Amino acid sequence: MGITVRKSEDLSEWYTQAVTKAGLADYAPMKGFIVLMPYGYSIWERIRAFMDAELEKLGHKNAYFPALIPESLLRKEAEHFSGFVPEVLWVTQAGDRQLNERLAVRPTSETIIYASVSKWIKSWRDLPLLLNVWNSVMRAEIKSTKPFIRTTEFLWQEGHTIHETKEEAEREVFLILGIYKRLMEEVLAIPVISGYKSESEKFVGALYTTTLEAIMPDGKALQMGTSHNMGQNFSIPFEIKYLGRDEREHFAWTTSWGISWRLIGAVVMVHGDDKGLILPPRIAPIQVVIVPIFYSDEERERALRRGRELLEELKANGIRAHLDDRTQYTPGWKFNEWELKGVPLRAEIGPRNLREGTVTLSRRDSGGKEDVVERDAARRAGELLEEIQGALFERAKAMLESMTHVAKDFSELKAIIEGRGGFVKACWCGSPECESKIKEQTGATIRAIPFEREEPFSGCVWCGREAKGPVYFARAY
Amino acid sequence: MGITVRKSEDLSEWYTQAVTKAGLADYAPMKGFIVLMPYGYSIWERIRAFMDAELEKLGHKNAYFPALIPESLLRKEAEHFSGFVPEVLWVTQAGDRQLNERLAVRPTSETIIYASVSKWIKSWRDLPLLLNVWNSVMRAEIKSTKPFIRTTEFLWQEGHTIHETKEEAEREVFLILGIYKRLMEEVLAIPVISGYKSESEKFVGALYTTTLEAIMPDGKALQMGTSHNMGQNFSIPFEIKYLGRDEREHFAWTTSWGISWRLIGAVVMVHGDDKGLILPPRIAPIQVVIVPIFYSDEERERALRRGRELLEELKANGIRAHLDDRTQYTPGWKFNEWELKGVPLRAEIGPRNLREGTVTLSRRDSGGKEDVVERDAARRAGELLEEIQGALFERAKAMLESMTHVAKDFSELKAIIEGRGGFVKACWCGSPECESKIKEQTGATIRAIPFEREEPFSGCVWCGREAKGPVYFARAY
Repeated sequence: MGITVRKSEDLSEWYTQAVTKAGLADYAPMKGFIVLMPYGYSIWERIRAFMDAELEKLGHKNAYFPALIPESLLRKEAEHFSGFVPEVLWVTQAGDRQLNERLAVRPTSETIIYASVSKWIKSWRDLPLLLNVWNSVMRAEIKSTKPFIRTTEFLWQEGHTIHETKEEAEREVFLILGIYKRLMEEVLAIPVISGYKSESEKFVGALYTTTLEAIMPDGKALQMGTSHNMGQNFSIPFEIKYLGRDEREHFAWTTSWGISWRLIGAVVMVHGDDKGLILPPRIAPIQVVIVPIFYSDEERERALRRGRELLEELKANGIRAHLDDRTQYTPGWKFNEWELKGVPLRAEIGPRNLREGTVTLSRRDSGGKEDVVERDAARRAGELLEEIQGALFERAKAMLESMTHVAKDFSELKAIIEGRGGFVKACWCGSPECESKIKEQTGATIRAIPFEREEPFSGCVWCGREAKGPVYFARAY
Repeated sequence: MGITVRKSEDLSEWYTQAVTKAGLADYAPMKGFIVLMPYGYSIWERIRAFMDAELEKLGHKNAYFPALIPESLLRKEAEHFSGFVPEVLWVTQAGDRQLNERLAVRPTSETIIYASVSKWIKSWRDLPLLLNVWNSVMRAEIKSTKPFIRTTEFLWQEGHTIHETKEEAEREVFLILGIYKRLMEEVLAIPVISGYKSESEKFVGALYTTTLEAIMPDGKALQMGTSHNMGQNFSIPFEIKYLGRDEREHFAWTTSWGISWRLIGAVVMVHGDDKGLILPPRIAPIQVVIVPIFYSDEERERALRRGRELLEELKANGIRAHLDDRTQYTPGWKFNEWELKGVPLRAEIGPRNLREGTVTLSRRDSGGKEDVVERDAARRAGELLEEIQGALFERAKAMLESMTHVAKDFSELKAIIEGRGGFVKACWCGSPECESKIKEQTGATIRAIPFEREEPFSGCVWCGREAKGPVYFARAY
């Protein structure tokens, strides 16, 4: 039941096996769709809990908006509509009736949310309006399905906020990006680079898009989360107006931002190894699995008794622990299964441990083992979990650094992209034509334009003319 | 902004105003759909938290399954399909492509879940499989929209479990019904009657359906939650088989059960009054609102300072409290708004309170007021919230009792149904023809057949022949 390929040899096949064999997700009967299984859902719930807590502190409120959007509403912002329409799924029938108007299965909720909030907002006193929604959206995927990374339907969180001023909207965009970055780096242990999207890569209809990007082991970038300043691009067609402090009517400023279950896919790809997942302790559904080892009924009773005591101690220390008391499997079989599922720490209780009054703690990330005396086991497990969380981040950071390259001219950029991949920092003049040519020639896109522009170290990597500064190129998922 | 009709005079109009003016929900731009606003969502999150905690104790796990179901899959259980097909919304296009097969927007997830779990289950060791899903489903509503009560899309929870034996499935059905009953009675303060559904009212495809039913102030029943034993009706077409303890293959036994945001509608209708909502403390997003009263800047500062202290004390006591420190509204305006929103307890801090070192606690349910010395305020608020929770249940129970009638013959039944309404306990012979005639003549259906059959006190209320015992009739939402 283990994974049959090496991660370094065939990342794609390794990934699919890791996701499905660990019980995170399963393919649904229709192309493009997956089932989020309980083990995967539990990780998603931890992501949700982190975001809910952070958003609540800043006054955001959860709400729910319809899953279907009338075509006329989706059309209200022309650029937005034309961007999404190629991948919209349309409801056209109810029972045996043809509908008068097609209803889009929401690809994103800007339009349906703006149609509502325009009725709710009267004066500046109603602002800011800070909404967040947990739902699923659909974008028809014609390419092959990759669980979490590329699916027609995906679970996500979409935030939508309405503000009095441009400055407030701008502050919100970056406040959220900061929360996302903490989620990714401190919770998921995945370092990210940040910046603006170029015009061609920004959210359709936005003034500008900010992004967080991670690098995967195959050298392809993964967009982890985006936060958009919509300016007044939507508030004007949707008539989101408020009576200002100056007693005059103004159009509001809006933002939207989202992260999806794609983050689970990133965790799998970044941290896993040939044996399967390695879950960062902060999102692991099970942080410590206790495996009793016994060769006789008498040993079994004692090991299980000790295991139950340890389970209670771990729980009392706020650690998510599980005692694997199944008798039909050998310890070795259990070790493999929990390694596949990425449980960060294993506590073994065998005959020698029972004699010595110890527990053997075994780390999933490094394979390191240590014996601790029983009364210290829970405390030490807590310490090790923190260490593992930190070690995973450091390892991922080293990978990001080793996969971030600098290119002074196009041949260098092309060689890196077509070789080991990764982020390529190269100078760009700002022209969409150069960006498009580079994409055409290499498949790489501009992943992020740094917020703080650095001095150019060369001319534009494509045209050679004066560059505005370096940006990050990469092929991406 | 208050409600402009009396609850007793026009429940329907009162209800719509109460729901929308209190900020629970808003109508969406398309018929049949509503927006669950933050205040309503917060109630839904409390219902969810209660259920998640109870289900987790019993080993259920949350998961997520696709929102679209291929027509061929929905057709696998014929009775199920024919029951749902008149109200299914169909996706037929993706972008500008026609799909080869229509995809149903899930009206319920039995078929898509069974298609997956049949792959997951190999042996009796994989059972029971206890799944729960929080999602939205759609059933095209041709009647007019009533927020929470009758909407095309609704948020709900659907549980799906797979068992080795008929007995286990049966136990699960009743275990869940018991949790639902506790949610309704102990959390939402709404008493319910329970029983089996008749053949004509059961879930399409089920062996039998159990139900919990409440009575609304207009004498109509509201189905609050159902729990179904599917027998092997689905496990056979979906081939949910397992290798048994006897080393032979068996078809599994399945159950499903659900509650929806309809429960929020029930809370509004059952507990509200002419001023607006009255929320049971256990689900109220805000349990205590603190309203400072002042006539000068100096009073304002003192009242606000006292208010902030009280806010912290209430929070420290685990009470969800809010300080209304807005200066643009009068205390009277604020009282009205918080009454409309149904906050169970108001704490007033005015000049007299400041002089006397007291807080005035005012109950939303009874209007009763009492002054308490400051240091006792948080403790006393906690007591009053418990009292309010109990008082709301008692009042609703008295309503249920006063609206439960007995009819010995059809003319009596008809007179009650067409008069004040309510539940009518009447004897029934068990024939679907009699049930159908009664529905035709009065609009009343059999809401529940008591689990413990009572002795009949008359012949069948329709045909006069020997009855099996009394059942509960009512018109229903």
